[in-house]
Amino acid sequence: MTAVEDRRPTGGPLSLADIRAAAHSILPAGIWDFIEGGSGTESTLAANKAAFTDVALVPRVLTGVATADTGARLVGTDAAVPLAIAPMAYQSLLHEKGELAAARAARTAGAPFIVSTLSSHRLEDVAATGADTWFQLYCLRDRAKNHELIGRAEDSGCRALVITVDVPLMARRPRDARNGFALPTRVRAANLDAAPGGEAHRRVPGASALAVHTSAAFAPGLSWRDLAELRDRTSLPLVVKGVLDPRDARAAVDIGAAAVVVSSHGGRQLDGAQPSMRALPAVVEAVSGDCEVLLDSGVRSGGDVLKALALGARGVLIGRPVLWGLAADGERGVGTVLALLRAELAEAMVLAGCADASAAATLRTERWESHA
Amino acid sequence: MTAVEDRRPTGGPLSLADIRAAAHSILPAGIWDFIEGGSGTESTLAANKAAFTDVALVPRVLTGVATADTGARLVGTDAAVPLAIAPMAYQSLLHEKGELAAARAARTAGAPFIVSTLSSHRLEDVAATGADTWFQLYCLRDRAKNHELIGRAEDSGCRALVITVDVPLMARRPRDARNGFALPTRVRAANLDAAPGGEAHRRVPGASALAVHTSAAFAPGLSWRDLAELRDRTSLPLVVKGVLDPRDARAAVDIGAAAVVVSSHGGRQLDGAQPSMRALPAVVEAVSGDCEVLLDSGVRSGGDVLKALALGARGVLIGRPVLWGLAADGERGVGTVLALLRAELAEAMVLAGCADASAAATLRTERWESHA
Amino acid sequence: MTAVEDRRPTGGPLSLADIRAAAHSILPAGIWDFIEGGSGTESTLAANKAAFTDVALVPRVLTGVATADTGARLVGTDAAVPLAIAPMAYQSLLHEKGELAAARAARTAGAPFIVSTLSSHRLEDVAATGADTWFQLYCLRDRAKNHELIGRAEDSGCRALVITVDVPLMARRPRDARNGFALPTRVRAANLDAAPGGEAHRRVPGASALAVHTSAAFAPGLSWRDLAELRDRTSLPLVVKGVLDPRDARAAVDIGAAAVVVSSHGGRQLDGAQPSMRALPAVVEAVSGDCEVLLDSGVRSGGDVLKALALGARGVLIGRPVLWGLAADGERGVGTVLALLRAELAEAMVLAGCADASAAATLRTERWESHA
Amino acid sequence: MTAVEDRRPTGGPLSLADIRAAAHSILPAGIWDFIEGGSGTESTLAANKAAFTDVALVPRVLTGVATADTGARLVGTDAAVPLAIAPMAYQSLLHEKGELAAARAARTAGAPFIVSTLSSHRLEDVAATGADTWFQLYCLRDRAKNHELIGRAEDSGCRALVITVDVPLMARRPRDARNGFALPTRVRAANLDAAPGGEAHRRVPGASALAVHTSAAFAPGLSWRDLAELRDRTSLPLVVKGVLDPRDARAAVDIGAAAVVVSSHGGRQLDGAQPSMRALPAVVEAVSGDCEVLLDSGVRSGGDVLKALALGARGVLIGRPVLWGLAADGERGVGTVLALLRAELAEAMVLAGCADASAAATLRTERWESHA
Repeated sequence: MTAVEDRRPTGGPLSLADIRAAAHSILPAGIWDFIEGGSGTESTLAANKAAFTDVALVPRVLTGVATADTGARLVGTDAAVPLAIAPMAYQSLLHEKGELAAARAARTAGAPFIVSTLSSHRLEDVAATGADTWFQLYCLRDRAKNHELIGRAEDSGCRALVITVDVPLMARRPRDARNGFALPTRVRAANLDAAPGGEAHRRVPGASALAVHTSAAFAPGLSWRDLAELRDRTSLPLVVKGVLDPRDARAAVDIGAAAVVVSSHGGRQLDGAQPSMRALPAVVEAVSGDCEVLLDSGVRSGGDVLKALALGARGVLIGRPVLWGLAADGERGVGTVLALLRAELAEAMVLAGCADASAAATLRTERWESHA
Repeated sequence: MTAVEDRRPTGGPLSLADIRAAAHSILPAGIWDFIEGGSGTESTLAANKAAFTDVALVPRVLTGVATADTGARLVGTDAAVPLAIAPMAYQSLLHEKGELAAARAARTAGAPFIVSTLSSHRLEDVAATGADTWFQLYCLRDRAKNHELIGRAEDSGCRALVITVDVPLMARRPRDARNGFALPTRVRAANLDAAPGGEAHRRVPGASALAVHTSAAFAPGLSWRDLAELRDRTSLPLVVKGVLDPRDARAAVDIGAAAVVVSSHGGRQLDGAQPSMRALPAVVEAVSGDCEVLLDSGVRSGGDVLKALALGARGVLIGRPVLWGLAADGERGVGTVLALLRAELAEAMVLAGCADASAAATLRTERWESHA
Repeated sequence: MTAVEDRRPTGGPLSLADIRAAAHSILPAGIWDFIEGGSGTESTLAANKAAFTDVALVPRVLTGVATADTGARLVGTDAAVPLAIAPMAYQSLLHEKGELAAARAARTAGAPFIVSTLSSHRLEDVAATGADTWFQLYCLRDRAKNHELIGRAEDSGCRALVITVDVPLMARRPRDARNGFALPTRVRAANLDAAPGGEAHRRVPGASALAVHTSAAFAPGLSWRDLAELRDRTSLPLVVKGVLDPRDARAAVDIGAAAVVVSSHGGRQLDGAQPSMRALPAVVEAVSGDCEVLLDSGVRSGGDVLKALALGARGVLIGRPVLWGLAADGERGVGTVLALLRAELAEAMVLAGCADASAAATLRTERWESHA
Repeated sequence: MTAVEDRRPTGGPLSLADIRAAAHSILPAGIWDFIEGGSGTESTLAANKAAFTDVALVPRVLTGVATADTGARLVGTDAAVPLAIAPMAYQSLLHEKGELAAARAARTAGAPFIVSTLSSHRLEDVAATGADTWFQLYCLRDRAKNHELIGRAEDSGCRALVITVDVPLMARRPRDARNGFALPTRVRAANLDAAPGGEAHRRVPGASALAVHTSAAFAPGLSWRDLAELRDRTSLPLVVKGVLDPRDARAAVDIGAAAVVVSSHGGRQLDGAQPSMRALPAVVEAVSGDCEVLLDSGVRSGGDVLKALALGARGVLIGRPVLWGLAADGERGVGTVLALLRAELAEAMVLAGCADASAAATLRTERWESHA
């Protein structure tokens, strides 16, 4: 139980927007663009946020709720909050401790940390922070490497395997291309034993070095059969990340997924894709309780989390805000982000009369069309 | 009957916006932010106003109506207008006479005045102005104090007991936190015999002293059972303020409420909550005439009042505009606000062909989606 | 038949917006505000225009139409265009020839001219221009005067009696009140033998002298019975102007009206009223061909006229644009306005494949919600 | 099969917007206005673009798709991309090689090139570039000339006859009228053997010389019978360009059309017409597979193409972007435009899990109302 009485940090940032502003003032423009940018005209990026504004909550009153239990069971992990840290590449871009700092903050906050295939620290080191760690796999061309990564994830105590399915290729992101973005030498894909001078580090004018690297490294043409093959390689619960069509969500259930993540990849993959909050209700209906439904893309406050729960999500993944916190103040910055989200969520739940997530799922909502 | 011929003040403010501008030019920024601000990103604050713009009225013609009777019976009180002054804390922040000035203006206008638990003048003194006074109770941790307050309200002739049910905690309001807002020494919760040096006066950097005080003083976890217990303590008609979900409106009927107030608390509690004007029709349908339905949050003109009546409200509560009037010119300023609202309402009713509130309830409306 | 080949004026204004700009540059601010302004927050004023933008036409092709017959039979008058000049008061404010100039332009254009009760030239003089003249009656307190006016209209050859039913009082128009607008001495209600020093000329700070005059002169509380009484006084066809609710449109049919004008009075009466283009379809359905349906409020191009025809209007009334033309260049200016509208309409009809108004009525439309 | 690996041009423009900016910086204002402008208030011009933003795609995942086949069979022509170059007049305005340069780029890209009746190079010369050439006919008053043009089209190997049916007259385009736009002497309607000093070259203040010429040259009053007569003159497949109403699409099927082009003529004909993307679904449903459905007006990216395919189009026509490319860099500029579109489309298809156009047709979409 979260005591709502002590939910206010004194001084410091009042919202994630404050932390975003701090990060913006610190980061080099190229890195800022890399984390903030989206694909194409960034229409899905904008729509992801508008989709939250367009949902209103109908709170309940006199429910006897004085404090809210923000706890959630996410893919078999008991979490203090219905949120996990989204898998994000190369976190050392933001702070030298990168994933280690973020994972430590996640551990403190009681939130699972999803370590990326493209982590800038080795997954073993991340898991060793003591955070509840899930491993995210970008399926590589080198299939043996996939199996090795899964094995390492299991060996280091990861508690779920998250397969990202919405990156059959890395979408063109104009900001990175314009910046000729490449990784600085100090940052590398540690899990892949990437050498400092590899493709991701080689500046190409008018293109993103990361896109070049991704294209070379990731397996193209992933299918449900590939997913089944990976599933058979592990005893970890499977999370299918990047689903918008309810038919795909149903297919994920059929293949035995423990969860799907409704996601438009933070507006970084198909530009023009449906915002995840608009896709959520149909996915929830399609899976009909047969697996968990998580959501990412556009969550910027505890109120946003509550809206996702009200529309049927079990929890959400937090992406860019974690990077803002990391840039602003390392582990402490991420801690502030997570504490703010938890405090805001607890407050919103109490204000909506919800003792816990199951109550949140019964809230009514209204959606309107201010979109764009 | 209001003669429409004499409805125009000569000179002076032409709309509430003029009075708002006057208040803005006078008030210290911290007090301005306190009365104008909302919670979170202020999305519900904005939506409350947009929700009025999005409703269009379909006026009737040739109804024989030359003048409109703006009178209303509100919770057993005969009022000259279908509006009451919303319960608002610490009105001495705006003008030294505070609630006394506002109540006198309300008396003159024939509108009920709802005195707040957090009134900066004692409820007895407010009631002694001769205004039709209702008492608003924030249920306190000190239950004996609640009973004492109810007793005092009855003894001083209050005509209704308004229980606010949408403040299980006081939502974070970023403007106040940023300003480190605290009450000046001269303003205090007179009904609670608050000492000048109490929590509400102690400036906390990055937080609102009022939130700290609220958290210490108000009873958490209020339930329908608590409400029933309060109901049994009084013979006054009960008004349940802060309902958006029709199921809660129905529960209020079941507990014997004389009225519910459909409210999103002026955008100051759950940010992301449904605007009250969007919630109104479903609540009206749910209570089906079994209790009165009032509305607040966003009323800024007599035309707005007519829109609320057309959607089924018995009347509305007026909040911030009263504070603007108080700041601009004390009792006279509030008088101008109420006179303008009445004149605008009378004019709108005649223009819509409505002789009285019951005719207003038969107007058709259209709603569209320009929202936000 | 209008030859589309010669539809382009060479040089000169290309759209009504050009003529509006010319008028704006010429007129004193107080007069500009008087003609351009609306009531309240001017929300209906804005919505009237947006309601046209929100309707899209679905044109037909290969219909064999090379030229369009813009002719219309409006309330028994054969017109070269499906438009009439809306009744507007005091046109000498814009140009000394006022209604005489506008009526002459209307005659040339083959459009009926509706002379206002508050015309600044006597209706006999207006009718003597040779324009198809309709007389608009604001029902006066002095009932004998009404009968006299109707008799004069008949005697001078007016072809229809237009009763305005949406002015049970003149709505507060903040621009006029702020300007303390009053008529200059040279402009007066000629039909009413108003003396130069009357109420409409007496400047009142913070109020519109016209509103004061209207309030004194117009009969309050008009009813359907009054309308029947007026109907019985004349053999002229009756036009009921200012209807939005389909129930009132039906009542107009029942009383024998030849036409109703769906109107929100140019955004000058009930602020918050439904835009007329939004009200049109339900009115058309309600009258079901039993009387003509005209529309005003917001028509700014020939394409707007076609949209109104496609939604079932027989024709439209043109208001402010006529005043712009009058201000810009007297009779010639109004002539340009009407010629532009006719040319634009003819062009739009040909582009939509419509040989005539009956074809226009079969066009499909789509409406969306960009409103406001 | 398009290899997605090599889809990124290094350096150079990243999107069509970059090429548009380059063209804007190069072209004289009068020519820029001629290609960019629309009719009337340019409301349909704006709506055409917004209609794409308002459609969201629901991508599929794990479909095994690594590369997308962008190939399409368009009106019997095998194309490497589901797009053709829209018929556009006087391309030598943009670059001296005009249609020849554009057609060569189209040939390289494997896209059909539709040569306009008003081409500034003779259709035989355009066809001789080796591009898959379709001939677009504006039906002329001189019927013999029509037959001659059709014969020339057949003789020079054109593979389809495109009849434009939405120009019963050329709509007024205010920018051109204001500019007094006329063709420079060097640019002329080569197919019509237009003399350099003809009407299209004669500057008329306040009017477009092209409109004058069009009015003189084009046959007015085209009907379905005329279309049938043209059909009987040729063995080429017939494409009916400029259809929005599903009833007209059905009529096109009945007359034996191989395809209809759903088009609002780039916002250059009926202002206020339905945006083509809004018209598309009803047309697709009406023709029910009995002919191909193409679309133009507003396509600005490969993602836009995919949205059109998802709503049932067989392919799209590309207009203004080709002119931008031509102005920016002649054949090479057009090549860049087409390569970008193909690369973006291939990327979007892979991201949406679509191996080919038939898969694209099964994508779900969502439409919302941010329009305008």
